[in-house]
Amino acid sequence: MAARRPVTIYADLVSQPSRALVVFCRAAGIPHEVKITRIARGEHRTPEFRKLNPLAQLPVAQLWDGEEQWALAESHAILKQLCLHPEVPEHWYPESPRVRGAVDAALDVHHTRIRRGCAVWAFAKVMGPLGKLPVPPKEVVDWHGGMARRAFKDMELMLEAAGEGRFVAGTAEPTIADLSIACELQQLEAVPGADDEMRPTPRVLQWMSDVKGGLQPHWDEVGSVLTKVRAAAEAQGLRA
Amino acid sequence: MAARRPVTIYADLVSQPSRALVVFCRAAGIPHEVKITRIARGEHRTPEFRKLNPLAQLPVAQLWDGEEQWALAESHAILKQLCLHPEVPEHWYPESPRVRGAVDAALDVHHTRIRRGCAVWAFAKVMGPLGKLPVPPKEVVDWHGGMARRAFKDMELMLEAAGEGRFVAGTAEPTIADLSIACELQQLEAVPGADDEMRPTPRVLQWMSDVKGGLQPHWDEVGSVLTKVRAAAEAQGLRA
Repeated sequence: MAARRPVTIYADLVSQPSRALVVFCRAAGIPHEVKITRIARGEHRTPEFRKLNPLAQLPVAQLWDGEEQWALAESHAILKQLCLHPEVPEHWYPESPRVRGAVDAALDVHHTRIRRGCAVWAFAKVMGPLGKLPVPPKEVVDWHGGMARRAFKDMELMLEAAGEGRFVAGTAEPTIADLSIACELQQLEAVPGADDEMRPTPRVLQWMSDVKGGLQPHWDEVGSVLTKVRAAAEAQGLRA
Repeated sequence: MAARRPVTIYADLVSQPSRALVVFCRAAGIPHEVKITRIARGEHRTPEFRKLNPLAQLPVAQLWDGEEQWALAESHAILKQLCLHPEVPEHWYPESPRVRGAVDAALDVHHTRIRRGCAVWAFAKVMGPLGKLPVPPKEVVDWHGGMARRAFKDMELMLEAAGEGRFVAGTAEPTIADLSIACELQQLEAVPGADDEMRPTPRVLQWMSDVKGGLQPHWDEVGSVLTKVRAAAEAQGLRA
């Protein structure tokens, strides 16, 4: 077989779905190149980028269909395409309909219940102010903070239903739903004071540790940007 | 082949994802029974219902895996399982990876960009007050109203990228992404005054008409509850 051509990932590593893709390509050994596209500099709003994604959202992947390159947005959709690569272990997106259904549902819960609160809250507390981007009014931020706290409860319920030592979709090994949700919660680490204000429960932290453990050293390397974001936030007195 | 056993759908037809499932089962001829579960009466919060979905969210489907029945939550995940039924026309969730990727991405945009604004706004304006359920503060509702308006713009961009006469994922026939997004926008019809305040663009309305057209009479029959909701809202003086 000819060498596989690399997938191109347009990513801002400060952003959760971008990190999920880059960590996944590295951990699964998918040939890829990362084109850093900075949200704070508006690099996702250029005419060139809008040709890849008219909605001007990151991340975007350029994938191969035979000789033809095509662009796909939305991290969940991209992860599913990456799982078609033969080198990706099957546990990330199992083919059995019943297990796949559970993974799809957990990915949907990520979008409808977990991401909403965490992403708006962390953005308003730190990423927005650092990038000099407009943030929602305080009432809106507080309301999303409440959603983020409920997300920890949702995760508790999902892990309890999955069973002892299992991942969110009930599997014995992690899936793309675990990766996506763990990267979402990881962004809270960039917010000074979140350890007190917005701390996942011990069960959720144990699950995160299990997910991270299987993705090292890529998890820490790709996530190191959050340490820098946190330091910059501390320097500006930004807090939870 | 033995007669297929019916899928059981737990649904509140006032809720968009519930309607999407029921319309789909009817239109695709999937044997099913609907168990009406009323959110306003807290019927999704009973211990029995939490055995089906620990997160206490509607809809839930009970599907068959051979002789064994299993429960799955989240409408997108359920729709994908229903598309495995051999009687469902392939256009609803095409198997070609590239087209399936585009459908998955459009479903993700439904969750991350379109549903968020529309669902919170319509709930706060009408469904919440009618059900005597707590609604978010005004600033939060207004912010989500802004998101709902941006969703129309997102839909314009997606339809423009899809091409003349095409559906959101670029296909010539509708997919489960069209169904899900159309049911989401449909709920705005329950809000008196939304015709002025929160009106999709002509292009989006034309696309909705195309989606609905292929789903009649099921679309109108399942959606008739929204006419009653609107009348009840008008009687109570609720408005956009």
